[in-house]
Order: sequence, then C-alpha cells, then structure tokens
Amino acid sequence: MDEISYDIPHHNWGYKEWEKDFQAMKSIGIDTVVMIRCGLRRFMTYDSEVLRNGVKAFTPPVDLVAMYLELAEKYGMSFYFGTYDHGLQWNASTWEDFTELNCQMIKEAWQRYGSSKAFKGWYLSVEIGREHPYVVKGFNRMGKLCKDLSGGLPVLISPYIEGSLASSGGLSFDTHTKEWDSLLSRLQGAVDILAFQDGLCSYDELTQFLVINNELAAQYNMQSWTNCESFDRDMPIRFLPIKWEKMYHKLRAAEAAGMQKAITFEFSHFMSPNSMYASAHGLFDRYKEYMQL
Amino acid sequence: MDEISYDIPHHNWGYKEWEKDFQAMKSIGIDTVVMIRCGLRRFMTYDSEVLRNGVKAFTPPVDLVAMYLELAEKYGMSFYFGTYDHGLQWNASTWEDFTELNCQMIKEAWQRYGSSKAFKGWYLSVEIGREHPYVVKGFNRMGKLCKDLSGGLPVLISPYIEGSLASSGGLSFDTHTKEWDSLLSRLQGAVDILAFQDGLCSYDELTQFLVINNELAAQYNMQSWTNCESFDRDMPIRFLPIKWEKMYHKLRAAEAAGMQKAITFEFSHFMSPNSMYASAHGLFDRYKEYMQL
Amino acid sequence: MDEISYDIPHHNWGYKEWEKDFQAMKSIGIDTVVMIRCGLRRFMTYDSEVLRNGVKAFTPPVDLVAMYLELAEKYGMSFYFGTYDHGLQWNASTWEDFTELNCQMIKEAWQRYGSSKAFKGWYLSVEIGREHPYVVKGFNRMGKLCKDLSGGLPVLISPYIEGSLASSGGLSFDTHTKEWDSLLSRLQGAVDILAFQDGLCSYDELTQFLVINNELAAQYNMQSWTNCESFDRDMPIRFLPIKWEKMYHKLRAAEAAGMQKAITFEFSHFMSPNSMYASAHGLFDRYKEYMQL
Repeated sequence: MDEISYDIPHHNWGYKEWEKDFQAMKSIGIDTVVMIRCGLRRFMTYDSEVLRNGVKAFTPPVDLVAMYLELAEKYGMSFYFGTYDHGLQWNASTWEDFTELNCQMIKEAWQRYGSSKAFKGWYLSVEIGREHPYVVKGFNRMGKLCKDLSGGLPVLISPYIEGSLASSGGLSFDTHTKEWDSLLSRLQGAVDILAFQDGLCSYDELTQFLVINNELAAQYNMQSWTNCESFDRDMPIRFLPIKWEKMYHKLRAAEAAGMQKAITFEFSHFMSPNSMYASAHGLFDRYKEYMQL
Repeated sequence: MDEISYDIPHHNWGYKEWEKDFQAMKSIGIDTVVMIRCGLRRFMTYDSEVLRNGVKAFTPPVDLVAMYLELAEKYGMSFYFGTYDHGLQWNASTWEDFTELNCQMIKEAWQRYGSSKAFKGWYLSVEIGREHPYVVKGFNRMGKLCKDLSGGLPVLISPYIEGSLASSGGLSFDTHTKEWDSLLSRLQGAVDILAFQDGLCSYDELTQFLVINNELAAQYNMQSWTNCESFDRDMPIRFLPIKWEKMYHKLRAAEAAGMQKAITFEFSHFMSPNSMYASAHGLFDRYKEYMQL
Repeated sequence: MDEISYDIPHHNWGYKEWEKDFQAMKSIGIDTVVMIRCGLRRFMTYDSEVLRNGVKAFTPPVDLVAMYLELAEKYGMSFYFGTYDHGLQWNASTWEDFTELNCQMIKEAWQRYGSSKAFKGWYLSVEIGREHPYVVKGFNRMGKLCKDLSGGLPVLISPYIEGSLASSGGLSFDTHTKEWDSLLSRLQGAVDILAFQDGLCSYDELTQFLVINNELAAQYNMQSWTNCESFDRDMPIRFLPIKWEKMYHKLRAAEAAGMQKAITFEFSHFMSPNSMYASAHGLFDRYKEYMQL
C-alpha cells in the first residue's frame, strides 16, 4: 500500500473506499498487506511525535496505520509496517542519523500499534539492487530492533533485481550472486523475507535470477518471495497498469522458479477493480481468469 | 474553468455534462466561476470577430461563454470573464499589441454578453510572480477599460507566490513584499481582487506569504483571496488531482491567514465528482467531509 | 486497433470487453478495423512460429487475430491485418531481413486466417513521411506478396503528413508533392490505399495537403483516406483523447478536401465509450452529435 508515495498520484480514498479495496484484495486471495513506508520526507501515515520532532513532519488528517490495522484484522490479513524514508541518499554521513530516527520511530510505532492482532511483520523500506554498505548497516540495526521488540515478527526487504533494464545496464548472474551472498550473510538475524522486485530484468533473465534468489535465501534461512510489479515501465505515461501479458510472463517465471509467495507493487492503483485507472480493472479480471477464481 | 487550456487535457463535455458540473460546484458552496481565458493562441471560447481578424482564430463549434453565463445564471453563480492570451512573452515590443487586441475584444465581449445577469466580473489572464513592467502596463489599461465599460465590475488577477518551489528558487518574504507593494501601487483603480496561486511555496512558507498578501491588499483597498491549486505538482504525471492532505494543509494555512475567499484551479478536472480523473471524486468527498457538508 | 503498442498503455480487455467495443464502433458507422501490427519486437498478437523462431517472440496468452476476425465477422466489418514491426530502423543493412521475416509471417498468417470472411485487406505497418528507399523496397515486396497470396486484397499504408509540426520543421507543399509522386510511382501494384495521418501539420495546412494527397492517389489509381488522429499531441500527458474542437477542424478539412473515407488512430482508447480515459466518452458523444447519429 503506497499511500505516502514518491511517484504514484493519490486516490484520495477514505475509510469506505479502503474497506472496499481490502474486500477486493481478499477476494483474489491476498492475505498480506505491506504499508510501503510510515512516512516520506515530511508526510506521515500516523501522527508520530518522533517524526514531528525529528523532521518537522506535518500532522496528518487521519491515522492510516490504525485504519489499515483495523481493516487487516477485520479481513483476516497480515499487516507489515514499513519504516520511515527521508527521501535522501544513504551514505557514510547520513546512515546513522537515518537509522537512529527510524529506531526511535519503530519503538513508538510498536508501543502504539503492537497490540493489534493484525500486526504481523515489518518492512524495511529502502530499496537497493546491489552491495550498499550503509543501507546494510541500517537494515541490520533496524531489523534486529524490530524483531527484539516484537517477539521475532518477520522482517521483509524488497530489493530490486539489477537486471539488463536497470540504468546501470545490469549485473551479470555471477555478480548478482556474489554481491547478494555477501549482503545476506551480513543480514542474517535481521531479515527474514527477501522479496525482489521483478521489473528491471528482461523476461528471459527473470527465471534465472529468481532461481538464484531462492538458493541464496535458502542458504541464509530466509523466505523467498517475488514482488511482481503491476505497473507498466514501457509507456510514456509513468505509470499506468501493466499489460496483462507482461504480468502473465512474470508470474509464470515465478512459478517456474518455485517462489514461495508473490506480492505486488501495488494492488490498489494497478490491479484493483476500484482503481482510478480503468485498465487496472481489466488486469484484475485477467488475473482472476488466469487463476480460475 | 480551464476550457481553453495550456496543459490540461479536455473533458469533451457538452451542455449536459457542464450543467451536471455546475450542480456539483453549487452543492459544495461554490458561488463564483472564472473562465480562465476567452481564447488562447488560435482557439476561442466564443466566435470573436476581433480574434478571427486579429490572430486568425478558428471558429469554435459552440459558444462556451453563452453556455457558462446561462448555467451561472441558472445556478445563481457569479461569472468572471477571462481575457485573451497570445501564449507568447509580454515584453517591450509585444505588450502594446497584446493589450490593444485585448481591449478590442473586451469591448466586443461586453457588448455581446454584458447584459447577462451572471456577468459579475473580469479576470486578467496573465500570470506573474514578481515585478513585470509590461504586464503591469497591460493590466492597468485592460483593467480600467473593463471597469469603465461595465460600471465598475470587479477585476481579478491571480499571480503566483514565487516561493521556494519556483524554478527561480523563490523570493524572500521581504523581496516579495517590496515588489508587490510597488506592483499594487501601480494597479490601483485597475484591479480589485488579488487571488495568489498557492502552489509554488512550501507549506511552511504559505501562511506567512498569505498574511503579507492580505496586508498589501488591504493597503490598496483590494480583496485578498487564495487560489488553492487542486492538482498535484509532485508527481511524474503532469497533472492529476492533488493528494487531499496537501490541499488540507493549504486550506488550513488560508484559514489561519484569514483569507476572504478561496477559489481553486480547477474544480472540473481535479475536484469534481464528474472529473475524468477518478481521484478527483475522492478529493470532492474528502473536501465535503472536511467542510462537514 | 493498437493492441501491441509502442506508447499507448493497455486496457487489459478480454473477449467480452472487445465485443462491447466492436458494438460501439458499429454504432457510429465504423465498417473497417485495422490491426496496427501483428507483432512488435518480441510481443505477438497470435502464436506465430515464424516470429518465435525469428525473433524469439513470447507466446501470447490469447489469439487476438482470431478474436478480431470473429468479432469483425459477427458485426459485418472488414478486418485489415497489420505486418510485423521489429521496432528498429529500416536501413541498407536491415531492410532485407525485416522484409524477409515479414514475408514468411505473411504466408503463415494467410494460411492460418485467410479463410475468414472478415479478412479483407492488409496494412503495412511502417510509418514514413517522405522519401525512404528502404521502406519503399520493403513495402513493394510485402505488398505484392500480400496481394498475390490473397487474390488481390487491398493493401493499406498510413504515412504521416510531414507538416510544420514535425520535428524536422516540415516539408513544403512542393517537396511533399514531389517526394510522394516519386514514392507512389514505385509503389504501384503493391499499395492500394493511402491513409495519411493528420497530426503533424497545422489546421491551416491540412486541407491543402489532403487535396494534394487525393490528386496523387488518383494519379496512381489508389484510394485516398484520412487517418484522423484522436489523441491530443499538445498536452504534457502523452497521450489522452484529443479535444473535440481539434478533431472537428480536422474532419471538416477532410470533408472540404473530399476524402474517400476516414479512419482514426485509434478508437478504443481515444474515442470509445468503453475507453479507460473518460474524456474519450465525451469525444464519442460529441462526434455522434456532429454526425447527427
């Protein structure tokens, strides 16, 4: 759920519209919802004193976290809480401050929402594609805190596969394997679930990357999910729902690789019968046909 | 009403759809509609002989001005008539021609539509953020003509606050104050209403800018409105409806500053239950909740 | 029908939605549907062995050609089959391979679909605006093959008028005439219908260009249609439906020039009551009013 968004315009939904969308998710078998971040720059999903003091965040008109937890509980879904994002680069001079602020916020959030039955995990919201020492340090500290506080609730990260469609030109299978082997070895005990985004590699590469990711995850006792992007990266309007055929090829690659679970970025705009983008309604219908729902 | 648009795609509405939208406006308390311009480059809202001869404008398939006046009268709203826009730079060599063409068109428009009960004011359609000698000269001449012809109907301008989000990097409060003090002193007698656009300053700066604008307006016996932009400037799709929370912070800043009235650019695309953009329907609902309508 | 698209996001329609759209087309007098291409890069409209082997194309989840032919037959419409597009430049070193692959695919497609009653013509999918020796060579070979195989079914091309809005700055009427005279002289026997796109010239130029095109077409025994673009080229969102007034001016120019037929790029996204873009619904209504349907 991308309600504090970098680049996806808002639906301006209220409680009623969100409830309808949780019903739509439920109807196609979605059992887990991930709040992409609890705040971005100065916008927040709940009225966090930590973020108000720390980054002069604006007091929001509603408490989205409370709403999501209530709906997740009502519909029997697991809610993952996403950490705060400054919207700035993680580097040698920023990473400790970013991590420290997040750690304070994590404690506040757990205190406020930890008693909810639907609170089932954490999501560390920074996205990387390859070796990144400062993000790894942050993930390590934040992930361990999340688990300590919450009696070991799982911690999810969602890196991207830096494939041939990435602006860098992409990593070879070997380099990807080597770098993520090293990264995951340093994230053991702090991260439980790896859900790579599938949008920056070609359809051909995808299965192979997913197989590698599965093997690495198994080696470090992590779960291996796919994050199947449901927006179209190939069109001049950035972004509208993906063409079904593309999602179909990606889902089949995930099946072939034997992924443990699939999530998507993101349902409400790009795949929902309630989306402001009507082609999302079509994507929902095509997915249902494919899944024989 | 942005029916001859620079950058907002058209709804392709006919009379029936426009009437429905006037009803929606009425339902949330909108009592004033402003036609953003009567023509842009070679497109016109009514079949103006002046513009046909002056800029080889295309004869339009319908008379939008007549339609807007009829609907405004039917729903008890005030209609402001926007002047013509060449779509070119105002400078030393163009301003007199631009102004002269507009003055002829203003006479024509008043002769044709001035008897309508809903014709309640004029809008000078050029947008500036700071000192601009040629636009001021044009405003002065046009504004006075509008008032002379129409028995003193009010003249509205809608400059932008050149805040920190402007491409220039923005003006300090002091510079803004100094330049607008000078500008308004030269616009006395030609302009009655100042409605600054609120999109190019940060949420923090906004209240302070609005307070300054109120003081300046009072000093020159003008009314001070806010033009609360309802499109989102922060997204890669340029432009879809604004996130409600952003509008909420801007409206609260306007309340805090004690603005006399709020208008928006613009209702039909970005805030209407009839908009082609479904997130506008959400914005309409959220606004109604906020206003307890 | 732009179902394998360069730049128009997909509706994600299934059979039911497409049938509804054929009904909408029928209701406003559309009697001909053109499939813009049977494949682009590695995506295909039907499971072509030629393209699977030739460019490692992906096996599509449905057979769009079969669906279009079935619907065209059901609603009494003529279907034109568009050729394959590599998405690459036609030049001295590529044109023969591009043409050869297309020729193999054309044979395959005719064998598979030629018995359909609705299969009424071919469309050569490359777009040019002026002299282009390699495309002409390809058109010649492909067009003749199409006609030979199919007992002379008509072959359509849809070049663009390289007018003053083209990135090149446009051709003069004289240059356009000279180059197309030469091009058409070399395309006799391979091409039957010329349907120039009308989006890259100004409204003033359009009638004159269309008159020239009619004369050239007559000279070479070709039909002369207009391809009236229904998307708006002037807006920052690329692309949403065109403003009705613009289409109105272009259709009137086509009437004035005496075109034999009008097609549009394209109905389903930009002009249909079923489009994901709500302003297309308005365009459909305005067109119906204009045509008194």
